[in-house]
Amino acid sequence: MEMTSIGFIGTGVMGRSMALNLLKAGHELHIYTRTKQKAAPLLAEGATWHDSIAELAPAVDVMITIVGYPSDVEAVYLSESGIINNAKPGSLLIDMTTSKPSLAEEITRTAQARGLIALDAPVSGGDIGARNGTLSIMVGGDSEGFERALPLFEIIGDKIIHQGPAGAGQHTKMCNQIAIASTMLGVTEAIAYARKAGLNPTRVLDSITTGAAGSWSLTNLAPRMIKGDFAPGFYVKHFIKDMLIALDTAEEMGLETPGLQLAHSLYQDLAEAGDEDSGTQALIKLFS
Amino acid sequence: MEMTSIGFIGTGVMGRSMALNLLKAGHELHIYTRTKQKAAPLLAEGATWHDSIAELAPAVDVMITIVGYPSDVEAVYLSESGIINNAKPGSLLIDMTTSKPSLAEEITRTAQARGLIALDAPVSGGDIGARNGTLSIMVGGDSEGFERALPLFEIIGDKIIHQGPAGAGQHTKMCNQIAIASTMLGVTEAIAYARKAGLNPTRVLDSITTGAAGSWSLTNLAPRMIKGDFAPGFYVKHFIKDMLIALDTAEEMGLETPGLQLAHSLYQDLAEAGDEDSGTQALIKLFS
Repeated sequence: MEMTSIGFIGTGVMGRSMALNLLKAGHELHIYTRTKQKAAPLLAEGATWHDSIAELAPAVDVMITIVGYPSDVEAVYLSESGIINNAKPGSLLIDMTTSKPSLAEEITRTAQARGLIALDAPVSGGDIGARNGTLSIMVGGDSEGFERALPLFEIIGDKIIHQGPAGAGQHTKMCNQIAIASTMLGVTEAIAYARKAGLNPTRVLDSITTGAAGSWSLTNLAPRMIKGDFAPGFYVKHFIKDMLIALDTAEEMGLETPGLQLAHSLYQDLAEAGDEDSGTQALIKLFS
Repeated sequence: MEMTSIGFIGTGVMGRSMALNLLKAGHELHIYTRTKQKAAPLLAEGATWHDSIAELAPAVDVMITIVGYPSDVEAVYLSESGIINNAKPGSLLIDMTTSKPSLAEEITRTAQARGLIALDAPVSGGDIGARNGTLSIMVGGDSEGFERALPLFEIIGDKIIHQGPAGAGQHTKMCNQIAIASTMLGVTEAIAYARKAGLNPTRVLDSITTGAAGSWSLTNLAPRMIKGDFAPGFYVKHFIKDMLIALDTAEEMGLETPGLQLAHSLYQDLAEAGDEDSGTQALIKLFS
């Protein structure tokens, strides 16, 4: 395998594991973080620190980002001191944040105009998938970019699908979040009903989990609801961010999504009640 | 195994297969159907025909019913010429219709007063589960009844769980339907979004089916939505019936179920548009 010099921005729970897997696979890793101490574990493994994005971008052939909100993506890519203004000609730019499809399209257009190639490549699979290199990577962008990125994607994921042109990766991730949103509502109402009816909810799960009512959420999150374990696998606040992107995008496309709308508004209530840093299974709290 | 004389009422798609499995296991089967020709396949296999419920009930030790609506259950059990008024003392009565928990409680009380034992034991697993004897059976009623019924349940199901007292089987089935209701909404909106965004929905499924968005519905029904195959696995009209029971029961218990309410109202729209005899995956039609 050819060694690639990779710039990595965004060393949160997901990004840190992904960057570490790239480093361990023998690639040269360059990083910039707003808070330098967050970079310490990667620096200890041999990553190179840079003082700014403007300094980091020209030093590498591939930039990978996984930051927080679309506004962060916009700043990192499109600002004066951002990636696109400072990257080496011919660089490959891969945004793995879950972000707006329309922003992915704008980044791709702007990048192309400067002789750069951009991909949108959000992931699913959570912190465990990031650690084990088993993420699902949903990729939007042109085929040349996809082929170039593939050897790197194969280090951090195990289900890597080129979904279409710029934005298609983000759109696919939105489908994922839309499916989860109403499914979580169904799982939550089922557990709330079981309790209210005086059933043993765990025994109910024994009856219903493997049949037509089955879902990843019913298997993995309903037991946590029952135990009252609200530790975040996936944060309420991040889920709300994703649902809002999906809602806005659906509206722009003229698609009604009443289930998503309902789930979003209930999760908003949950966040306002103080649970924005809980896991998404905390939705059960609204029903008790 | 001891041979039991079983009366069976309700030889629709599910009931016919369940009755046939009991017959093949060596039990004596007595049947009554409103339309005699529907009984022909079972009569050909050795079942005994009776002209009325009042004639059938005293001829057997166990009555099994799987009919359509709660009103049918009520008529079959509680009317003058129904099961409870005509059954042999000590008979075991098992209603496997998906019906109202409160009606199951009433049947149990009325049966007890006449020295009969009643169970509510709705199933999931569909026509294939009924044919293969692999249904999930959710049982409500006392332990004595459950123990007596167990050898028969083991012929028609493979996940048999005593959920609690009278009504608990029906309540558990309601949990199943509540989880399905919103999950179907999430799956449908995800596919609708994929189409509207110009993605290839089948390729989207490749990315999202095995992760946190995964569900039985996404795996089994989304591909049918994509193909436009609306043949009924589970009928829209039956799903509406079940959701209405769940809604009424939740309301009686003082539980709000906004996801279920939304799903019910959308399925109502679908039925009114002429799709009551389609499979539940036809929900996608509302989104195109």
